[in-house]
Amino acid sequence: MPSCDLDVAEAVLEEFGRFCAEEIAPLNQSGDRVGARCEHGTVVTPPGFRDAYARFEAMGWQGLQHPARYGGQDLPRALGAAATEIINAANISFALCPLLTDGAIDALLSFGSQDIKQTYLPKLIAGTWTGTMNLTEPQAGSDLALLRTRAERDHDGIYKITGTKIYITYGDHDLAENIIHLVLARTPDAPKGVKGISLFLVPKFLVGHDGRPGQRNAVKCQSLEHKLGVKASPTAVLQFEAATGFLIGHENAGLEYMFTMMNAARFAVGVQGVAIGERAYQLALSHAKGRLQGRPVDGISNEAVAIIHHPDVRRMLARMRAVTEGGRAMAAFAAGWQDLAQHAQAPEQRADAVAIAEFLVPLVKGFCSEMSVETTSAGIQIHGGMGFIEDTGAAQHYRDARILPIYEGTTAIQANDLVGRKTLRDGGATARRIAAMIALTEQDLLQGSPSAQAIAARLSHARAAFQSVVDHLVGIGTQDANAAYAGAVPYLMLAGNLIAGWQLARSVIVAEAALAHGADPFMSAKVATALFYAQHILIETELQRTRVIDGAASLLDAPL
Amino acid sequence: MPSCDLDVAEAVLEEFGRFCAEEIAPLNQSGDRVGARCEHGTVVTPPGFRDAYARFEAMGWQGLQHPARYGGQDLPRALGAAATEIINAANISFALCPLLTDGAIDALLSFGSQDIKQTYLPKLIAGTWTGTMNLTEPQAGSDLALLRTRAERDHDGIYKITGTKIYITYGDHDLAENIIHLVLARTPDAPKGVKGISLFLVPKFLVGHDGRPGQRNAVKCQSLEHKLGVKASPTAVLQFEAATGFLIGHENAGLEYMFTMMNAARFAVGVQGVAIGERAYQLALSHAKGRLQGRPVDGISNEAVAIIHHPDVRRMLARMRAVTEGGRAMAAFAAGWQDLAQHAQAPEQRADAVAIAEFLVPLVKGFCSEMSVETTSAGIQIHGGMGFIEDTGAAQHYRDARILPIYEGTTAIQANDLVGRKTLRDGGATARRIAAMIALTEQDLLQGSPSAQAIAARLSHARAAFQSVVDHLVGIGTQDANAAYAGAVPYLMLAGNLIAGWQLARSVIVAEAALAHGADPFMSAKVATALFYAQHILIETELQRTRVIDGAASLLDAPL
Repeated sequence: MPSCDLDVAEAVLEEFGRFCAEEIAPLNQSGDRVGARCEHGTVVTPPGFRDAYARFEAMGWQGLQHPARYGGQDLPRALGAAATEIINAANISFALCPLLTDGAIDALLSFGSQDIKQTYLPKLIAGTWTGTMNLTEPQAGSDLALLRTRAERDHDGIYKITGTKIYITYGDHDLAENIIHLVLARTPDAPKGVKGISLFLVPKFLVGHDGRPGQRNAVKCQSLEHKLGVKASPTAVLQFEAATGFLIGHENAGLEYMFTMMNAARFAVGVQGVAIGERAYQLALSHAKGRLQGRPVDGISNEAVAIIHHPDVRRMLARMRAVTEGGRAMAAFAAGWQDLAQHAQAPEQRADAVAIAEFLVPLVKGFCSEMSVETTSAGIQIHGGMGFIEDTGAAQHYRDARILPIYEGTTAIQANDLVGRKTLRDGGATARRIAAMIALTEQDLLQGSPSAQAIAARLSHARAAFQSVVDHLVGIGTQDANAAYAGAVPYLMLAGNLIAGWQLARSVIVAEAALAHGADPFMSAKVATALFYAQHILIETELQRTRVIDGAASLLDAPL
Repeated sequence: MPSCDLDVAEAVLEEFGRFCAEEIAPLNQSGDRVGARCEHGTVVTPPGFRDAYARFEAMGWQGLQHPARYGGQDLPRALGAAATEIINAANISFALCPLLTDGAIDALLSFGSQDIKQTYLPKLIAGTWTGTMNLTEPQAGSDLALLRTRAERDHDGIYKITGTKIYITYGDHDLAENIIHLVLARTPDAPKGVKGISLFLVPKFLVGHDGRPGQRNAVKCQSLEHKLGVKASPTAVLQFEAATGFLIGHENAGLEYMFTMMNAARFAVGVQGVAIGERAYQLALSHAKGRLQGRPVDGISNEAVAIIHHPDVRRMLARMRAVTEGGRAMAAFAAGWQDLAQHAQAPEQRADAVAIAEFLVPLVKGFCSEMSVETTSAGIQIHGGMGFIEDTGAAQHYRDARILPIYEGTTAIQANDLVGRKTLRDGGATARRIAAMIALTEQDLLQGSPSAQAIAARLSHARAAFQSVVDHLVGIGTQDANAAYAGAVPYLMLAGNLIAGWQLARSVIVAEAALAHGADPFMSAKVATALFYAQHILIETELQRTRVIDGAASLLDAPL
């Protein structure tokens, strides 16, 4: 199992943080201003992106969490999640390129033939080539059953791919010498719907016997979308015109492969939410410390003070921070289960970890992405009028964050996954298992300080809300699907909120143990942030419970 | 007192709706794309704006709610609020020009000398000239005590104004032959802080004895801001270089005058929130009806259905609609009290109406603007990936809405006003008076259908939450200002939510009376929307109560 000690983890993240702060972050605002452009069928990334990517590749960052046997560094996902946050906090538009490559690597590692692995993985893991996911078509967004792209058998394992794919992130660009597209398509005799989807590898340049990119394949970028945010990342319309594709795994099993690829990408999008929340928080905090405006409400001064002294500015900042720290803790927790799911020795331990890891993916994706919209909005609000002016930078975070609850499956898609595949399918067993773990944390907290005990009380209420929603959904799920799915997003937000708050509560136990040995501002802050979270955010779970349990009829009957 | 019968009201709104739909709305997306530009010190509005404004002026729409003695139509504010919603739903950027003119008209009506009124009001009310509000300076945003713009006495009632004002909406443009700036500035011997602010009228072109614009005044547009939204509306930096200004009212009383002007503008910004919520809803609804994607969760079909059939899409649409209808009802209710406050015969009735009308202004402004950010965000989400592409239009609503909780006083400023001037100052009397009115509605609802009774139950809980928060704030307000103001925004959101839900509940009583005479889909929809609101939105009041009453300590102690 991949592992590393704390010193290595710190050194890696410190160095990656330095690299991202110095070389990637400075390109965020200029990249937004210039945007990616498509000129004569060729995509040009904004100034600085090529050099920065070359450095990213040269330093081997793409390989961080990938297997050493293909040139990676074999570090745990728990570390990979932290690195993903760092690069996305620096520049989401830039980070999307390695993020998609990670997804392609995961898919090939799981389902590629030996030949495919040997040919493509070393280059992808080195960052020399990049990867894409080609799912969406104009008539098929969330609904993959409607895919039309055709794959005609040519000769052994080789197919001719024809069709139009849209919303392809880094579908074309000038950062790397080759682009490896993973494309969902149908063979002529495939069954209807999602059972007839196959997965193909379609390189931009066909790879010669020497392992080098050779002949140009028949896939081209038709145009780029004009988007609200992440403007520096090219979002391509790709046209496949009998392009050469290599079947991955078996025909008609593409949906399963796609889910593997998507799971990694969905988790990473949740981490993007944490990342942009952190960046928005840092920017707002710095503004609030420097901007003098208004006298203190308690009248202790007659002069204007820095706005961080005003209670409502504190409220917004505290919420940004607590949501971000909670999301980060949940993502780290989930990544730990992913490591176990892949590498635990005992099969039953692995199965158990898989269930928990998969339960957490829609929560990390859905909750953290939704909260990032709120958090970046608060980032604007704290800036006042300046937040609405593009030069400040807060508005870009707000625009960039807005894609997170949409791509790699909207929040509703995550919530339907949570209800259907993750809760109803096992009769709520995994959900109840997690609730039991939370109850143990409550017991531990009750041994702690008054703050810890106050957190335990809120956590206990939130867990009870979670359990009653799970019971409710398991009860009605099979008879009244409309009512069950009417509560899907509130259930997701409840569960995500609870798991994030639980992780902060766990950090309180560690922090108070450390504080027993002496004052430590970092540890005191952990306790205070967790208490704020419990009293201001965790309490939202009861509202969501009411919506799920009492609200389905009025929702389904609402006139539109 | 201005009044009109239902037929006149319908005819006016029908005609204004047609005009806005046909001539103003089509300029919304193109205006956003092109934006207002500043060329050689002259501001050019986007193509089509000049012609549309000329038609707006020619049809006399600016005068709708203004006095007949200056050429207006003397219609009630309650009607004016509906008209404000209509034009803002069509095009917020365009509508900002008449909105600011309305504010200037209100200020001059209340505080201008006879001479000033005769010279300026007929032109402003005719829409021939437009008005602006010049408050903000780089160092003085929410904090007017920090204003530095100087006003040196020249001769009788005439001053020379020197300074820089920023964020001046329609501070310069090419729509009208003159622009009347209302400018806050300090005389050399003025007291420090807000007690030393005076209000001046500074025309772009000085008005000759013939009543026509003559010599150019020394105020010029230095630049326009590059904004997140409302891009077609020029946001100017104005430079005053010993510009000729006319004192309005008395020296050092500018803050009071400014509040009159602001009250109208704040109310109108709340209505903008309702307006953009409505437009976003209509766009999302139309998309949801047309987009085929996914099979029904209850398995009644094997084919893709329009996404409006999916429970979570219904949830988002129902929420958009309920929030928008609730906000609209609250704004109409508040406008009715404004009419009474201006025109009721008995002084004590007027005073009573003033108290209620002023209590409602921060709620309309704060709640409706905050909700518009959420509503336009849902508008994007319902579009999925297409929502993130600018061509669809949903993203523009999201960008445009984001200024609403900021300009004319941020939500925190509204909330501080609600706590300090509107609640603590009268010891909670107005708040309790409103609570008593709500309790009467609950009694009426209990005579109605099961839906009406269910609404009564939720309304009663929400009112109790409101009352306990008011009691709490009145109790601690004078001793612990930090704790009181830490709950200001949650209190505002609680109160706004309650008043909006209350108005929907009142509509249920009217609707059920009508339904007793036979089926009526419009009336049935009112009941169903109010029930959805009660079960999904009104319940948020209890969460806000917990934040105010139990959350101040953890908020004020939160580490930042």
